[in-house]
Amino acid sequence: MSSEKSDQSSVTITFPDKHTRTFPTGVTGFEVASSISPRLAKDALSITLNETVMDLDRPITSDGEIRINTWDTNDGKMTFWHSSAHLLAEAVEALYPGVRLGIGPAIEQGFYYDIDFGDTTVSVEDLPKIEKKMLELARTKSDFVRREVPKDEAVSFYKEKQDPYKLELLEDLEDGTISFYTQGNFTDLCRGPHIPNTQNVKAIKLLNVAGAYWRGDSDNKQLTRIYGITFPKQKMLDEYLHMLEEAKKRDHKKLGKELGIYMIDSMVGSGLPIWLPNGTVLRRSLEAFLRDEQIKRGYQEVITPHIANLKLYETSGHYPYYSDSQYDPIQVDDEQYMMKPMNCPHHHRIYGREMHSYRDLPVRLSEFGTVYRYEQSGELNGLSRVRGFTQDDAHIYCTDDQLKDEIKNCIDLTQYVFNTFDMPVDIRLSFRDDNEKKYGGKSENWERAQREIREVADELGLDYTIAEGEASFYGPKIDFIIRDAIGRKWQLGTVQLDYVMPERFDLTYMGSDNQKHRPVIIHRAPFGSMERFTAILIEHFAGDFPLWLSPKQVALIPVSDQYNELAYEYAEKLREAGLRVHTDDRSEQIGLKIRESETAKIPYMMIIGEREKANKTVAVRKHKIGDLGTFAFDDYLNKLATEVQSRTLPSEADKKTTSN
Amino acid sequence: MSSEKSDQSSVTITFPDKHTRTFPTGVTGFEVASSISPRLAKDALSITLNETVMDLDRPITSDGEIRINTWDTNDGKMTFWHSSAHLLAEAVEALYPGVRLGIGPAIEQGFYYDIDFGDTTVSVEDLPKIEKKMLELARTKSDFVRREVPKDEAVSFYKEKQDPYKLELLEDLEDGTISFYTQGNFTDLCRGPHIPNTQNVKAIKLLNVAGAYWRGDSDNKQLTRIYGITFPKQKMLDEYLHMLEEAKKRDHKKLGKELGIYMIDSMVGSGLPIWLPNGTVLRRSLEAFLRDEQIKRGYQEVITPHIANLKLYETSGHYPYYSDSQYDPIQVDDEQYMMKPMNCPHHHRIYGREMHSYRDLPVRLSEFGTVYRYEQSGELNGLSRVRGFTQDDAHIYCTDDQLKDEIKNCIDLTQYVFNTFDMPVDIRLSFRDDNEKKYGGKSENWERAQREIREVADELGLDYTIAEGEASFYGPKIDFIIRDAIGRKWQLGTVQLDYVMPERFDLTYMGSDNQKHRPVIIHRAPFGSMERFTAILIEHFAGDFPLWLSPKQVALIPVSDQYNELAYEYAEKLREAGLRVHTDDRSEQIGLKIRESETAKIPYMMIIGEREKANKTVAVRKHKIGDLGTFAFDDYLNKLATEVQSRTLPSEADKKTTSN
Repeated sequence: MSSEKSDQSSVTITFPDKHTRTFPTGVTGFEVASSISPRLAKDALSITLNETVMDLDRPITSDGEIRINTWDTNDGKMTFWHSSAHLLAEAVEALYPGVRLGIGPAIEQGFYYDIDFGDTTVSVEDLPKIEKKMLELARTKSDFVRREVPKDEAVSFYKEKQDPYKLELLEDLEDGTISFYTQGNFTDLCRGPHIPNTQNVKAIKLLNVAGAYWRGDSDNKQLTRIYGITFPKQKMLDEYLHMLEEAKKRDHKKLGKELGIYMIDSMVGSGLPIWLPNGTVLRRSLEAFLRDEQIKRGYQEVITPHIANLKLYETSGHYPYYSDSQYDPIQVDDEQYMMKPMNCPHHHRIYGREMHSYRDLPVRLSEFGTVYRYEQSGELNGLSRVRGFTQDDAHIYCTDDQLKDEIKNCIDLTQYVFNTFDMPVDIRLSFRDDNEKKYGGKSENWERAQREIREVADELGLDYTIAEGEASFYGPKIDFIIRDAIGRKWQLGTVQLDYVMPERFDLTYMGSDNQKHRPVIIHRAPFGSMERFTAILIEHFAGDFPLWLSPKQVALIPVSDQYNELAYEYAEKLREAGLRVHTDDRSEQIGLKIRESETAKIPYMMIIGEREKANKTVAVRKHKIGDLGTFAFDDYLNKLATEVQSRTLPSEADKKTTSN
Repeated sequence: MSSEKSDQSSVTITFPDKHTRTFPTGVTGFEVASSISPRLAKDALSITLNETVMDLDRPITSDGEIRINTWDTNDGKMTFWHSSAHLLAEAVEALYPGVRLGIGPAIEQGFYYDIDFGDTTVSVEDLPKIEKKMLELARTKSDFVRREVPKDEAVSFYKEKQDPYKLELLEDLEDGTISFYTQGNFTDLCRGPHIPNTQNVKAIKLLNVAGAYWRGDSDNKQLTRIYGITFPKQKMLDEYLHMLEEAKKRDHKKLGKELGIYMIDSMVGSGLPIWLPNGTVLRRSLEAFLRDEQIKRGYQEVITPHIANLKLYETSGHYPYYSDSQYDPIQVDDEQYMMKPMNCPHHHRIYGREMHSYRDLPVRLSEFGTVYRYEQSGELNGLSRVRGFTQDDAHIYCTDDQLKDEIKNCIDLTQYVFNTFDMPVDIRLSFRDDNEKKYGGKSENWERAQREIREVADELGLDYTIAEGEASFYGPKIDFIIRDAIGRKWQLGTVQLDYVMPERFDLTYMGSDNQKHRPVIIHRAPFGSMERFTAILIEHFAGDFPLWLSPKQVALIPVSDQYNELAYEYAEKLREAGLRVHTDDRSEQIGLKIRESETAKIPYMMIIGEREKANKTVAVRKHKIGDLGTFAFDDYLNKLATEVQSRTLPSEADKKTTSN
């Protein structure tokens, strides 16, 4: 690290808000945090200095940009969970003397440690015991202490411990300084950083045990991988466990099967979902919703084939550079074709087929385009990670002067879409890192575009963060991160500027100056993928979709056969009003019919017996709520039609119904 | 031919209506026709005896089923055009002594002859001269005379004529009897049959000249192919030439480009149409029309991927048997995948995913499913012959007892669809040939199915023909042949029974007897392919689509800029009523705007000036008709919305409008 080499007497620290302060050389992150507030010093877990995460007590010896990492930051959580992995190892060594340790990293949600238990088998039943030991060790309030040692000393240490795994890791490390971290009675070879003290860890849950080959190679020995998660507060763990339980109940793979949304069939292919009738209704409803909205906003829909000549992807530059995620080419006569991994180049060719005047711009081409990308079979997961998926894709070709309005329109559309599903959105502006040279297009275009994106975001009054260095190679972008009903975050809809493809495809328009100009392209897809969005939607609503999305909207339940005719008559009227009806005319008990409608999550039941027949009424039951009372059939039909039309959310619908 | 071998003194002739009559052995087709009516004898061109077409004057020496072929039959036309090819050869020999002749068959529309003109080049400019000569020869009223000769005599004949082509053809013929036909001064090696006399040919048109390699092999010499067509009446030729001219004007490749329906782009791929915005509107309208109708009839829509594991097609038996029309497999990990050539096996897997009770049947699965099939590049043609196309596919799984109702439903739907487009339909019941053994499934199923198909056709009062031997391998089918606005016939929508796939995919349902049974499958697709149907639709309507299908329905034309605001206001109202509007707010002359709307074939124009602004009216112009008068805007909006809703045909719309 460059900070070690400096010998100046003071260092200048730049904070995230760009203000700077000077500290004596050797100041620690903890001291910097303390200088801001005692509370921050207490909450600090590590610092990030010039994009390197470091222990809180390491001396800072050169100028740099600092972030103080608390639990609320990603770097803070990573430090916390990495230290927790050491705590797990300490507990395991205490309980199972003689174990040998592999690696123990932090992961997206928690951490794991790969351990060789020798002849002992450790299963989920053993986890509470280990948890208890970890908590006991955490409460010893031990500091994490870093010590730098020469490589040969490290090798001797592990030779004595007879640990082949750490010795193998050491072999791969460059000669020079090696670091050990010690807490309590446990020392581990580790690059760090760590949290200051074990007492930060207040709540611990070990989640699972799995087999894992050493270094992921199936020729190596299988170690035991223990997964866990820890928190600085018990309440956080309780909430997390509740969320896990909810997520399990809402799992789209479970609900997707129960509700007849989709199937995966090995004879058709792994990662290739088949949309079953109920799923197709749901998807078609989503498509119609977005299509109508796009038509209003001046989009034009197109349909392009699912294969294309390799020349197309050579022109776009996607072949051979992304061939890992693409299917192998198919030979057709003397040409090579490929399953399309994206719709973009097809749209560029449509734009490019004719000469455009600046008066014709913007051209907004949209497509529900199915693309095919290779994923490793181990990565496949229901609808959320697949090998074929349909993008709600669009490309906008506009002049520089139109860019700001078009970005605004894209953000507005995306927000409108997620509002409709009651999904709060966080917005991230992903800009380029000015120090990097990897970006395509002209520098003045980037600067103008980034400035305009900010202006739009400010004009719309958005709450956003800026992520420098997160832009794509061909332009800055705006990422939308939605939060679902159980608080999980999902990155969806992207709005992305592109200065590179107009060059590659030689796209032009004739300006008012009678000269040819390059349009700028905006790529955008609010849902991203119909498959992944449907997976999120199932889990967000736990399968209890808003009426307009429900595959079946009304169950008509005659109490006995003699009311079937009336049920058919009502069903016909409901269908004419555009509602999706299931008429349960079986000679079964009314209780069974109601239970089955509940299981199928049909939002409304209309029950028809003698009284209803006499008065032209229906007894209405709402899914999960129960009896709502008796209503004139025509009135309730209109109420339901309105609920569909206004895309009322289930929570809103409940209120309205009970006030009826 | 077997008829030659008999030596009985009389033959029993069976007529198409199954009645029989006895004639002396050696009776000719002409004599049989004369015995029915002198008119028939005059019109007769050849006979078909036991499925073999024969000259009218050949003696009949054994029992058989006869058809007398007049111009109104396909066999009659083929005889007529084959004889016309001989007439062409005679004319060419007379005009260009020393030419050598290849082959000269009848084709679907007319005939051609491949001729080696030596060093002389013959072009379309020479055709009138040849036509004139043919007509002159036809008027000589020469009989076509058959003569059977030993092979060596035939060889000597052509050796003397120094004709290498006929000698090569002779080499390939089996030894035995060879036949020559002579009319006037021309003799040709020919299997026959021919019409009685050249005077039958009253009207002649030579259509084109092209190069054609001898026997289709590019290593051979290129001969000159002359295409022609002939008719028994001048009026027929006039009508045919008018139809050709109309077809040229209506050519979907020309109109498809002009109207922005589709494009083919070599960088995307040959035979892979891209649906442009206007085409996508048209296609989505067709899909919505059929989808709504299918929902009413109890279909459930599904969506399946565009690739599938090879195992799926091995199970269906389509691989490797149809690999000529399939794309090469793609390797994915240790499995092989293929672009899907059909949707059927995907649907069978959906049906098969769960146990069905007889009470759940019929299950009707529909999909607008895009399939990929290899076609040779020379065969590709606009939207009508492509390598990727979308079927309006559906599979109905039903019990034997439900079959009749389901067939009725399918026929009814198909007729409803074509009625909507004002396309008259001919129906052909394609049954198996009882003498052939190639058919799958149980014989009793076939018999019942064919009986029930006939019963349904009779109950529906259909005018149909029965084609024995035209069934597919896996079941009988019903073919729909539509006639377009200029009289051309197109085979579209098929309804096809299938007894084989339920076995192959082990599809079952639980009967009321608590036993497993096989369902029967009906495959059906009214449009057949969205691409081909759209090609036919463009040509049928000459691009002047009914309002509900028109990509743009109304052009709003302000007479000057000061009326643009009102135009935007009207446009918004029209859009809210679901109409597709083009607002021409350019500062151009009104005449130019009207002309451009005419060229774009927008059905209605609403012109807005001072008087219209003052009175809240619009001056309406109809495409191809002109000024319709001035109407209250709201009234006309409602009229247009009704015209869309009722899917009024352009011809009907005109009537209604003028009576307004």
